[in-house]
Amino acid sequence: MDRLQVIKIGGNVIDNASELETVLYSVARLKGPKILVHGGGKLASEMSRTMGIEPQMVDGRRITSKQDLEIVTMVYAGSINKNITAQLQAFGCNAVGLSGADGNAIASAKRPTEPINFGLVGDVKSVNTSFIKVLLEAGITPVFCAITHDGAGQLLNTNADTIAAELASSMSKEYVTELIYCFEKQGVLSDTDNEASVIPLLDEALFRQLKSAKAIHSGMLPKLDNCFDALSKGVSLVIVGNTNVIDDRTVPHTAITRNTA
Amino acid sequence: MDRLQVIKIGGNVIDNASELETVLYSVARLKGPKILVHGGGKLASEMSRTMGIEPQMVDGRRITSKQDLEIVTMVYAGSINKNITAQLQAFGCNAVGLSGADGNAIASAKRPTEPINFGLVGDVKSVNTSFIKVLLEAGITPVFCAITHDGAGQLLNTNADTIAAELASSMSKEYVTELIYCFEKQGVLSDTDNEASVIPLLDEALFRQLKSAKAIHSGMLPKLDNCFDALSKGVSLVIVGNTNVIDDRTVPHTAITRNTA
Repeated sequence: MDRLQVIKIGGNVIDNASELETVLYSVARLKGPKILVHGGGKLASEMSRTMGIEPQMVDGRRITSKQDLEIVTMVYAGSINKNITAQLQAFGCNAVGLSGADGNAIASAKRPTEPINFGLVGDVKSVNTSFIKVLLEAGITPVFCAITHDGAGQLLNTNADTIAAELASSMSKEYVTELIYCFEKQGVLSDTDNEASVIPLLDEALFRQLKSAKAIHSGMLPKLDNCFDALSKGVSLVIVGNTNVIDDRTVPHTAITRNTA
Repeated sequence: MDRLQVIKIGGNVIDNASELETVLYSVARLKGPKILVHGGGKLASEMSRTMGIEPQMVDGRRITSKQDLEIVTMVYAGSINKNITAQLQAFGCNAVGLSGADGNAIASAKRPTEPINFGLVGDVKSVNTSFIKVLLEAGITPVFCAITHDGAGQLLNTNADTIAAELASSMSKEYVTELIYCFEKQGVLSDTDNEASVIPLLDEALFRQLKSAKAIHSGMLPKLDNCFDALSKGVSLVIVGNTNVIDDRTVPHTAITRNTA
């Protein structure tokens, strides 16, 4: 099987035009099949404010109203996705920007309204691997924004980390798949106050150990649960690091595998 | 060669949710390879007003500023394109929404700034027929919005009628291509005040005759010039009519061919 890299970049990269350009240049240079997944950054919130729409929050978490969905569809699938695609084309990478509705690539179900009604938010149900394979085999790089659809005409807002994990685990039937999460830090830190404490290799045993020692920052826990979930579903390797790791695996980063024993 | 239908729908359809749904149902039911091209409607202007941006006009024609481009990219490539795609999926049509940047499908050149500087407007240079063919052969229906790119990272605003004509003429090397322009009227009228005066069959000789008799409305002239240009570049047939003609060629409409003699 061929190797496939699924790279997720977040809002911190999207919000910085020159860093985004550097990252897209790295992605464009990567050899072999690859998929890029991007978050939204601050642009959607800025657009909301420009349009005079206050975000609704429940228990500190954002609710996606009909208007919010309209805004994220415009900003994620329109502005950000098409500008990334045009920039990748300029770097010689034949990219195609997609939402989950395109090619029925990612179907989701609206999240149940209990215990919290998050509004128009979708949980991934299925990935159309044959459509994605058609693109990859034609030398095309799919670029996914964090919008999916329910198959009945409704677009839904979906977490970009989850989209990357679902794409990677589904495609692992066809490819030896690596999932690369890029964020601000160089990797998973054993001491959150010390940037130099990057854990180079993390497996389930060490993860359990760090969890019980409460050494892992609370925001990192669901991210790492996602990573191990993807590994249990067939992903070969998960990398957590900053954007330098995209085209240089010699920089500090965390490689996550199921078992190192 | 297989038959390919390129259907262009305009703003009047986009602005009416129930009419749009009816049209997309017709498109979904069409057998064989097809491409849908859509305009923008009033949504982009409404978004501009919401954001407090006044459109700039020169000689009665709209200029695309950097902010205008940002808005049309959000509205055309984001909101309209993804909602159309999700609706087509709901009707069982495997659609993929695209701008010209996606798959380098439509490359354009920024229009020269003389005699009028239209801003970020692109004139089509080339169509990536092999990319579009990969999609069509996989049973996918491409849905194009009116955004192209210059290949150097710049998105450009491009007329949707022109995009439809360029797609149709380029694809005519691979398919027997029909170009269907949907608008408010039932077809080209020989008397603009009489809806019943639809010209059923229009060729170059009759077009010249109607032009010299000044029987064709001024707004229709560039549209028809585009149609004959597409025919001269290999398109087999151009249909001008309202949206009923999409799945029913027995309704009144204008069929345009080069020569009927």
